[in-house]
Amino acid sequence: MTFAAPTKDMLFNLEHLSGWSEVSQLPPYRDLDLEDAAAVLEEYGRFCAEEIAPLNAPGDEAGSSYGNGRVTLPDGFSEAYAKFVEMGWQSLQHPEEFGGQGLPRAIGAAGTEIVNAANMSFALCPLLTDGAIEALLTAGSDDMKSVYLENLVSGKWTGTMNLTEPQAGSDLALLRSRANRQEDGTYTVSGTKIFITYGEHDMSENTVHLVLARTPDAPAGVKGISLFLVPKFFVTPEGTPGDRNSVRCVSVEHKLGIKASPTAVLEFEEATGYLIGEENSGLEYMFEMMNSARFGVGLQGVAIAERAYQQALAYANDRVQSRPVDGSSRDAVTIVHHPDVRRLLARMRVLTEGGRAMAAYAAGWQDLARHADTAEARAHAAAMGEFLTPLVKGYCTESGVEVASMGVQVHGGMGFIEETGAAQHYRDARILPIYEGTTAIQANDLVGRKTLRDRGATALKFAALIEETEQELAKGSDQAQAVAKRLGAARLAFQDVVAHLVGTASESMNSVFGAGVPYLMLAGNLVAGWQLARALLVAEAALARGEDPDFMAAKVASARFYADHVLTDAGVQRDRILDGGDSLLAAIL
Amino acid sequence: MTFAAPTKDMLFNLEHLSGWSEVSQLPPYRDLDLEDAAAVLEEYGRFCAEEIAPLNAPGDEAGSSYGNGRVTLPDGFSEAYAKFVEMGWQSLQHPEEFGGQGLPRAIGAAGTEIVNAANMSFALCPLLTDGAIEALLTAGSDDMKSVYLENLVSGKWTGTMNLTEPQAGSDLALLRSRANRQEDGTYTVSGTKIFITYGEHDMSENTVHLVLARTPDAPAGVKGISLFLVPKFFVTPEGTPGDRNSVRCVSVEHKLGIKASPTAVLEFEEATGYLIGEENSGLEYMFEMMNSARFGVGLQGVAIAERAYQQALAYANDRVQSRPVDGSSRDAVTIVHHPDVRRLLARMRVLTEGGRAMAAYAAGWQDLARHADTAEARAHAAAMGEFLTPLVKGYCTESGVEVASMGVQVHGGMGFIEETGAAQHYRDARILPIYEGTTAIQANDLVGRKTLRDRGATALKFAALIEETEQELAKGSDQAQAVAKRLGAARLAFQDVVAHLVGTASESMNSVFGAGVPYLMLAGNLVAGWQLARALLVAEAALARGEDPDFMAAKVASARFYADHVLTDAGVQRDRILDGGDSLLAAIL
Repeated sequence: MTFAAPTKDMLFNLEHLSGWSEVSQLPPYRDLDLEDAAAVLEEYGRFCAEEIAPLNAPGDEAGSSYGNGRVTLPDGFSEAYAKFVEMGWQSLQHPEEFGGQGLPRAIGAAGTEIVNAANMSFALCPLLTDGAIEALLTAGSDDMKSVYLENLVSGKWTGTMNLTEPQAGSDLALLRSRANRQEDGTYTVSGTKIFITYGEHDMSENTVHLVLARTPDAPAGVKGISLFLVPKFFVTPEGTPGDRNSVRCVSVEHKLGIKASPTAVLEFEEATGYLIGEENSGLEYMFEMMNSARFGVGLQGVAIAERAYQQALAYANDRVQSRPVDGSSRDAVTIVHHPDVRRLLARMRVLTEGGRAMAAYAAGWQDLARHADTAEARAHAAAMGEFLTPLVKGYCTESGVEVASMGVQVHGGMGFIEETGAAQHYRDARILPIYEGTTAIQANDLVGRKTLRDRGATALKFAALIEETEQELAKGSDQAQAVAKRLGAARLAFQDVVAHLVGTASESMNSVFGAGVPYLMLAGNLVAGWQLARALLVAEAALARGEDPDFMAAKVASARFYADHVLTDAGVQRDRILDGGDSLLAAIL
Repeated sequence: MTFAAPTKDMLFNLEHLSGWSEVSQLPPYRDLDLEDAAAVLEEYGRFCAEEIAPLNAPGDEAGSSYGNGRVTLPDGFSEAYAKFVEMGWQSLQHPEEFGGQGLPRAIGAAGTEIVNAANMSFALCPLLTDGAIEALLTAGSDDMKSVYLENLVSGKWTGTMNLTEPQAGSDLALLRSRANRQEDGTYTVSGTKIFITYGEHDMSENTVHLVLARTPDAPAGVKGISLFLVPKFFVTPEGTPGDRNSVRCVSVEHKLGIKASPTAVLEFEEATGYLIGEENSGLEYMFEMMNSARFGVGLQGVAIAERAYQQALAYANDRVQSRPVDGSSRDAVTIVHHPDVRRLLARMRVLTEGGRAMAAYAAGWQDLARHADTAEARAHAAAMGEFLTPLVKGYCTESGVEVASMGVQVHGGMGFIEETGAAQHYRDARILPIYEGTTAIQANDLVGRKTLRDRGATALKFAALIEETEQELAKGSDQAQAVAKRLGAARLAFQDVVAHLVGTASESMNSVFGAGVPYLMLAGNLVAGWQLARALLVAEAALARGEDPDFMAAKVASARFYADHVLTDAGVQRDRILDGGDSLLAAIL
């Protein structure tokens, strides 16, 4: 099954949904135009389709394997990674100061989707490196940056995040790994870390482990966690990898999916580590890194959905089975003609497009948050972007699982046979609502930090923006008006929920947090549907000018289908939250 | 992870939801009482928990394998199957005339759930044998029955269903297998059949293949299909297996789940077959068998949900992580205390209970359809039971996938590690909405044969019965009244949809069939929620008498949670169907 990057849809989103008119005026991006973006994404799309995507199924079949402290990756991964580094793909969104291409997030996000759609197991390695780069940019010393950043940005070295321990998953307060300060200012780091993605491999010359641990006199709980850089190989004065540090891989997990990606158990035994930033501030830095990683995982949700959709559509256009129900043929037809197959594919398509549009929109805010002119504008953009992070992570990954499952269904019995490939997406997708914080953890973030803390102020800013879109839609075509109606109903449901959560927070925190995932799903649904509605306005205007009629007609159809078949869930989520709190608290298990 | 059969809930359903007062008065069941049923199910539950369930995870890991025409099952399967036969478990619901125990479906259904919850891969073998028994009882000659039935009912021999060919899955009109009549009245059967569950194995002395094929002068399409019995080994005059017939297994599939169950490709090369019933009536007999098999697959959906729920609940009661959000402890607590984990588990529980209750209710109608006093009563019961078959199959299997996925989610990262066991349920469950007819095929049946054909008459009989329950609820407690409100809203949504489908059938068959799956999901949701509402009435009466307060309080809580959190989806499904038909037809893929 071949894969083609959906660059056209990405460029549409970039131009029309990600605030490109503002982003392209930010100082770092003034020399950039849409043609540049198109050139980058099309070239990356070609590279990923030709070099990375073909390794996806064989990589799943072979898996990565462990022996004597070493991990063997599937055939072809190291060669492909070398080409990836050579072409400079790791560097897309990273600062030019450290050898990066300095492209905005709004483009970087599209790149992340592309490589993940091609091969999620492969793409996890660059994704973790992105996270390590973020952390060093945020809190690394100048010395640290000069030693590590250039090699990470080039992809020559790779990064890992070491948070989880057997007893400490979602709850980092339970961390036990220890770090002792030595006379020379370095630390010895000891402990066992699990679920370390690409924790051990030999695709790169060196691996930079970022590790959370406690110093001996640290306060209990999350306020006593520090972040350390622990290189796999010490760096020589010449800047090359030297002696090995005392961190070793003791096993890799036997997983449901992303089997080519090694998930390592790492033992740190008095390994030498370097403190990043201040002691006891580790969680704060890790949150910076996690926000970026969470957004990246949301893009993985879009990516797996895109891949599953392409595969299912190709099958539906090929498989001949049964006569059409409308009697239009006396012979069996390709199954894409059958109404329920169309229903499945249409839902797969709009969930994918909606997620992609929401991510593009969020990426625009991220760019403004970094580079807008004034501190006030940056703070506003940061609040808007951060509100969207749990939505992108939670909604797009839950959608990714649903879309991958529908992809299996479109294939019928063939979907259950591993050789077909649909099942791999179903297995791979399942990690997405779990790692980098489960959907419930995202919902806690959305409810606690992003909604209750400002008493719903940011949430209501979105509601106001959505209402503006409704007003534009209401002046438009029949299609636009129909979408306006659905969007308005969903937006009102969202406002009801925000008011309810803010109002009842003092009464029952169990009720409020029990409503978290339904609220997140409602908000994600709303924002994705809103972006498709914005796309509809653009597309109708383009159609009126006779521009690109096939593509633009499809954008209109997607917005309408999404509005009628997906946005309508918002009302049920509201009812669950407003009227179902008691029965949730009363549930007997 | 241990498994305990939910016999208490099953016996509650049997007594209160399956029409036991009527079923137990039917001639074949007059000697039976609830204590007998309890004894059978508890003993079967013990047997399955002790002998069958422990083979589930190792069976998945080892899988069945193929070499030189033979299939090797995982260790322990043959021994467990021998015990299964020795204990007579295959015979539960089959006629005493052929050595069966002659128990009603309402008990047989519970048995099917139990063995499938213990080990779905194992249980598929008896499930297919059940289907072969049904087909022979329906259409087999006396001679055939005397040669084969006793050995099938005992489980000494096993059965298979051979429908699918590479080009003919859902569309049996495309079948190519051929059967030529010989002078002695037998046929030579030739062709390739795929996806044959337990098509080859050596747990039993003989395998009875039921095979669909065409005779040379048969009409085209589904009206030219005949059903043949093709034994793996010919039966000697003494009734024992003799020479081998020319059917052989050429491979087994590499599947996403149910890996211990061999899914064979069978080559029939002029194999000797015996016509079952009349030529060209094969599909009709197969439908009999399929109705039973579809109901059985629906029970598999309930079974995998039960297993996934038990596993997730045990984990949530064990795993300690994070302080409670309501501040009730300063230490981390077991995750079952966290509101979203409770939400997930409550939803898992009520989908499971609701599916089980619907299946028990449907089984009661099946018993009446066979044994009621008058032809009129039998016809009425048959229509009611047959309406429910696609609901049980479609809704319970889609729910099974959802529940298994939520089970993974409850486990967090551990859920993605195969050794935990949650992932197996997620993989195993995925076949259920596909085999024995995809959910869309079930929906076609529900729309075409079960709704349009009688212009909604049967559907409206259910609506009237549901309204009676609403009236009883409305006279009851606050809980009962709250449930009545939800049930009434869902029932009205169902009526709207039935009227819409009947009304628009002449205008657009694409619209009508595009609405099929949402209609099926709405109807399944409604009937399951209705059964839980009936259970609530029973439970509140029992509570008023002080009977079994823990169990009965849980029944009330489940009915209420289901009403507030699941039944509310009915309105959205109605909106999708009534207002979303145009955007479905206009979808661009």
